[in-house]
Amino acid sequence: MTETFVIVGGDAAGMSAASKAKRDDPDLEVVVFEKGEWVSYGACGLPYYVKGEIQSLEDLVSVTPEEFREKRDIDLRTGHEVVDIDPDARTVTAESDDGDVVQSYDHLLIATGAEAVVPSIEGTDREGVYTLGSMSDGKELREYVARARGDESFHQPDRGPACRYLEDCTGPVGVVGGGYIGIEMAEALTANGFEVHLFQRGDRVLTGFSEATSEEVAAHLREQDVIVHLGSEVRELAGGDDESVTAVVTDDDRYPVEMVLLGTGVAPRTALAENAGVELGPTGAIATDADRETNVPDVYAAGDCAEATHVVTDEPTYAPLALTANRHGRAVGQTVTGRPTDGGGIAGTAALKAFEVEAARTGVLDHEVAREAGFDPVTETITAKSRAGYYPAGGDVTITLTADRETGRVLGGCLVSEYGEGAVHRSHAIVGALEEGATVFDLENYDLAYAPPFNTTWDPVLVAAKVLGGKLR
Amino acid sequence: MTETFVIVGGDAAGMSAASKAKRDDPDLEVVVFEKGEWVSYGACGLPYYVKGEIQSLEDLVSVTPEEFREKRDIDLRTGHEVVDIDPDARTVTAESDDGDVVQSYDHLLIATGAEAVVPSIEGTDREGVYTLGSMSDGKELREYVARARGDESFHQPDRGPACRYLEDCTGPVGVVGGGYIGIEMAEALTANGFEVHLFQRGDRVLTGFSEATSEEVAAHLREQDVIVHLGSEVRELAGGDDESVTAVVTDDDRYPVEMVLLGTGVAPRTALAENAGVELGPTGAIATDADRETNVPDVYAAGDCAEATHVVTDEPTYAPLALTANRHGRAVGQTVTGRPTDGGGIAGTAALKAFEVEAARTGVLDHEVAREAGFDPVTETITAKSRAGYYPAGGDVTITLTADRETGRVLGGCLVSEYGEGAVHRSHAIVGALEEGATVFDLENYDLAYAPPFNTTWDPVLVAAKVLGGKLR
Repeated sequence: MTETFVIVGGDAAGMSAASKAKRDDPDLEVVVFEKGEWVSYGACGLPYYVKGEIQSLEDLVSVTPEEFREKRDIDLRTGHEVVDIDPDARTVTAESDDGDVVQSYDHLLIATGAEAVVPSIEGTDREGVYTLGSMSDGKELREYVARARGDESFHQPDRGPACRYLEDCTGPVGVVGGGYIGIEMAEALTANGFEVHLFQRGDRVLTGFSEATSEEVAAHLREQDVIVHLGSEVRELAGGDDESVTAVVTDDDRYPVEMVLLGTGVAPRTALAENAGVELGPTGAIATDADRETNVPDVYAAGDCAEATHVVTDEPTYAPLALTANRHGRAVGQTVTGRPTDGGGIAGTAALKAFEVEAARTGVLDHEVAREAGFDPVTETITAKSRAGYYPAGGDVTITLTADRETGRVLGGCLVSEYGEGAVHRSHAIVGALEEGATVFDLENYDLAYAPPFNTTWDPVLVAAKVLGGKLR
Repeated sequence: MTETFVIVGGDAAGMSAASKAKRDDPDLEVVVFEKGEWVSYGACGLPYYVKGEIQSLEDLVSVTPEEFREKRDIDLRTGHEVVDIDPDARTVTAESDDGDVVQSYDHLLIATGAEAVVPSIEGTDREGVYTLGSMSDGKELREYVARARGDESFHQPDRGPACRYLEDCTGPVGVVGGGYIGIEMAEALTANGFEVHLFQRGDRVLTGFSEATSEEVAAHLREQDVIVHLGSEVRELAGGDDESVTAVVTDDDRYPVEMVLLGTGVAPRTALAENAGVELGPTGAIATDADRETNVPDVYAAGDCAEATHVVTDEPTYAPLALTANRHGRAVGQTVTGRPTDGGGIAGTAALKAFEVEAARTGVLDHEVAREAGFDPVTETITAKSRAGYYPAGGDVTITLTADRETGRVLGGCLVSEYGEGAVHRSHAIVGALEEGATVFDLENYDLAYAPPFNTTWDPVLVAAKVLGGKLR
């Protein structure tokens, strides 16, 4: 009898699972319920769409619904929101404009993703307050930017047009949060002529990265005319009579703005799973085993709604990022077709472009986290040339490397350089070391590629390993 | 009593050893004999000096002789050629303009490097025939280019000026050999307006790289107006009455040239070592143990004159490259100060820029070599986008990956992309996998950094691992 694989959520994890399962077992019936209209889209590209570097929202879609349906023979139902999972009956119930659907399953994947966190302060529901989690968020933001740039009547007379390309530009906007989204959006908005105030609660941006990276990125943001407020807790988004946002209020001051972007993190969407008796883990995301199966038999979870095991700490970790969603979705697709697949752990690796700087981080940099996992962390930060000193191009790469004092095992790394000078791709070497449990002494001896247009004889990664190794001996 | 560490040869391996030994044991007397005037120079930068991107030969020197002497307290004697090693008396004899010196040693490092191979054909001693191994070679080539570009009387009247920037440019020159040096020099000469004929004996350039890379690089060389002759064995360098070279003669044809660059590989300088009873290995370079000690007690060898152990095959291998020389020299510096250090193996990793293309290779790609080492090699080549498809920049990366059929162990990889699209730094991930004996299934799960300006969600390296893994299952 034909088995049915039902998937809740049609983005990275869901569609990776659907595609892989159908490819490996063409007889399997694969049904995907997606509450929105978009599937399999590159949310990571939204800031570049808002910026105007990507012309059409459709460009972010890697495979269209039609292609999934017609070429991949997947029963993809957009506009269907799953409202209930019944593990005993092995059914899900989905609501759509055409009424409810009850669908039975043999295997179920919960891939409900994450949603932007809205801080519990007053005024977040005002007009002109945005988040950037979904395609429709991106659409609204782009429309806002277009209005602000093109339609002068949009601007309040005392402030003038928002756009730098117009006369008397001021148009201050507020970005709350100094993580990826906040920084990428600061770039997107600055590029469109807005004066951007970035409010970060903590004392540095990119808190998951190294301090050296936070400092370099903050300095660069300021060079690019972003007004960076560190240690600045936002207390309220104040508004005018028409309910639109007009100011960001912090402990210290009040900043007039005509728009606010909340980049205050994401949280896993778990309500549907919880209602079905699926257990969450210590991070608040859905707990799974190595094959992504939850405590409920034949119910899997993958992507931004689920935890994963960290390759360094071996602990459940919540790091909702695109590659993990793709990888674990694909692994579930294999598992349900009879080939149980451990989709691998995560290293918390992340990359970022901020104007003309690039940065990457991987593994465990936080000493407290490292100690909780039983390590005795030691950290060194080095700055080295990105290319041969005599080569007529290049800049600096700053690398922070953390290792365990006793064993020398590499625990984490963070790299920052000018854009194009390879901080991000160089991080691949450190990820390899992390994944394999290698020591800094091993890493120091890696026979990495060298030629003057690409690095120094000792690539900066090797320099970092040498210096940290020297400290451990 | 103070011990003495004597080093023969003052380039990468020699000066790394000297610096490290002196730093770790300031009481050690460190004596370096260098027959030339240059020490610690970046020979890899010579093509860019000839090209004109680097203005001064001194720019290639990372540490000057004065700095070694004064700041690092190393007894560096340039202009001293060691002509004899007496292992029984534990002395070396060096000749200089000021007469002979006999120096006793407690530890001796042979770091005599490699020299350009001159093929045994007629005419290689003609005027206008160059190699590029040493600083003086670089100087001569740059002078040649300057004369050809600036001094019209240098050119034979029937051929016109060499330089493209002048009228009626022809100035054909010949490059023999399609390896790194040949290709980098083809770029340097083309950039200076020469019509370059590149002669490669085999049927592809860059024979140590993947076929896909060879093809892409050859096609790109042709796009850049290099005339690439494949399967073209050079039989003679013909000349005029004045003994200068005037033509490259192959089996098929005769090509008028006004200059020839021989890029036909390098060979280890071993005569001095052999005369002292130091054994060579199967590759013809000096054999050592893991700590770089030769069969003669307290006599070490490192750098381009010595073999090293390949991390994949575990066999002695000759791959004379800068990083190995630095790393193994440094390891000997540690060893002689009482801390025996295995400087690690080599993976045969190499990188190259050819005009607007970059490429890297690592490990074992050759199936015959893999089989000799006991593997059953399987290879796949993929082409993938270097950045998110929607991102307004990027190109293709082509990756060839080889693994063992039974175990899935990664044996080798080769990457090629447009310059700036990350083929070289991406190779770091594959080197990590090789060094750690990881499988393609491990590599496929590496949590590599991702953001749209840098790669696709699955970095091309992961795509290659997935595709090859699929073939092995």
